[in-house]
Amino acid sequence: MSARLELLALPGFPMVEAGDDLAGFVLDGVARLGLELAPQDVVVLAQKVVSKAEGRLVRLAEVVPSERARALAGEVRKDPRLVELILSESVRVVRTRPDVLIVEHRLGLTMANAGIDQSNVRHGDGEVALLLPLDPDTSAARLRGEIERRTGVAPAVVINDSFGRPWRRGTTGIAIGAAGLPSMIDRRGETDLYGRTLRATMIAYADEIAAAASLVMGQATEATPVVLVRGLAWTAADNPAAALIRAPEEDLFR
Amino acid sequence: MSARLELLALPGFPMVEAGDDLAGFVLDGVARLGLELAPQDVVVLAQKVVSKAEGRLVRLAEVVPSERARALAGEVRKDPRLVELILSESVRVVRTRPDVLIVEHRLGLTMANAGIDQSNVRHGDGEVALLLPLDPDTSAARLRGEIERRTGVAPAVVINDSFGRPWRRGTTGIAIGAAGLPSMIDRRGETDLYGRTLRATMIAYADEIAAAASLVMGQATEATPVVLVRGLAWTAADNPAAALIRAPEEDLFR
Repeated sequence: MSARLELLALPGFPMVEAGDDLAGFVLDGVARLGLELAPQDVVVLAQKVVSKAEGRLVRLAEVVPSERARALAGEVRKDPRLVELILSESVRVVRTRPDVLIVEHRLGLTMANAGIDQSNVRHGDGEVALLLPLDPDTSAARLRGEIERRTGVAPAVVINDSFGRPWRRGTTGIAIGAAGLPSMIDRRGETDLYGRTLRATMIAYADEIAAAASLVMGQATEATPVVLVRGLAWTAADNPAAALIRAPEEDLFR
Repeated sequence: MSARLELLALPGFPMVEAGDDLAGFVLDGVARLGLELAPQDVVVLAQKVVSKAEGRLVRLAEVVPSERARALAGEVRKDPRLVELILSESVRVVRTRPDVLIVEHRLGLTMANAGIDQSNVRHGDGEVALLLPLDPDTSAARLRGEIERRTGVAPAVVINDSFGRPWRRGTTGIAIGAAGLPSMIDRRGETDLYGRTLRATMIAYADEIAAAASLVMGQATEATPVVLVRGLAWTAADNPAAALIRAPEEDLFR
């Protein structure tokens, strides 16, 4: 079989507030496309909508920066209250320089600003910041379970976010949470057409899905934070997005 | 407009030999799908087929390892002739440890083994290695020009390869060459729905396309090294994949 993949932005996705019914919004969006979910469909959600639904919005006015946050804020030229939030979400500062603060997030993700977002966030009541979901793999699994409960079908769910990378400029979508698919596919031991061991043997499958969905999210003229991916087929066992995090002891660049 | 993206593996793509007519193979594959190319279509080719067509196959038996290559080969536990090739393609060794040799390729790419591939390569006449194209951006532009000459339509062309990353496990497809699209989209200065400056302001567009195509290439039951991507729409000016390479002086992790 030759492969064919389709990615569809869910139209009419509403602005999300804390406590909103994301599963319901997803099903409404799929219905607006005139479709029904099927197994091995993948629903990719931007981190932002998951964080908002989970109430991870913090008012900066309520944050009291520590001594350490104030000192670091001067160094990296950021709001001390924002730096306080970043530090509170992190286990380690990895690199700093003016305008750059790269940390190891408590989830293990190495990233700028602990993934804390100040864009596309409602701030009528003053400045706010949006933190990552508490546990994105669990968020993905919960959403998947809720969709299955209502429809009898369990699509895979990926939560994506835009990440910078060492060595390369620009951001790409990566998976910070996943359920119902292999985030990582381990092909070690498989051989190629000539019986040689494969070179790229560990495939960051959920990251590639996240990047593909990011293309579609960035393209629509309206906000489209959820994308349906159709046409993938996998046989490997499920593993969460946490499987994509390189342990510090096997990381040569941290 | 809501976004919809389609990725199609080109069926029946033949095994590629040095000097083969890649543009012809691409057009044959598109015709087999019953389609015609359109502007803002993107043709993504695996690095492997471009390298093969360009005759970048080297017989290891013809490689004489230097003193330095022999010493390094012991350290990283690789064939000294392969290490010689890796060094000859590189400007700098970035990290070594047993089974790991990460270099800065002469193209500026920081990568394992200088991207030299020993899998899926014909080796009836003994062991061979496949080097990256001499100049993948130029390869992409040439292929694009050749397609335009024959059809009157100039799709974008991306050459992808599987890369490992710091911080995260597994490989993803990235763009090592591109023509006819913005490899990097610079959205600095643009604002979000609330007038705030966007967070992810530099988008590694060609890398996201490369990752998406990689999902499809890896999925087919036959070798499908070329994928047609339909439904992208961009307005930014073209820039090559070289625009995605972070200069050493702006890289905190090299």
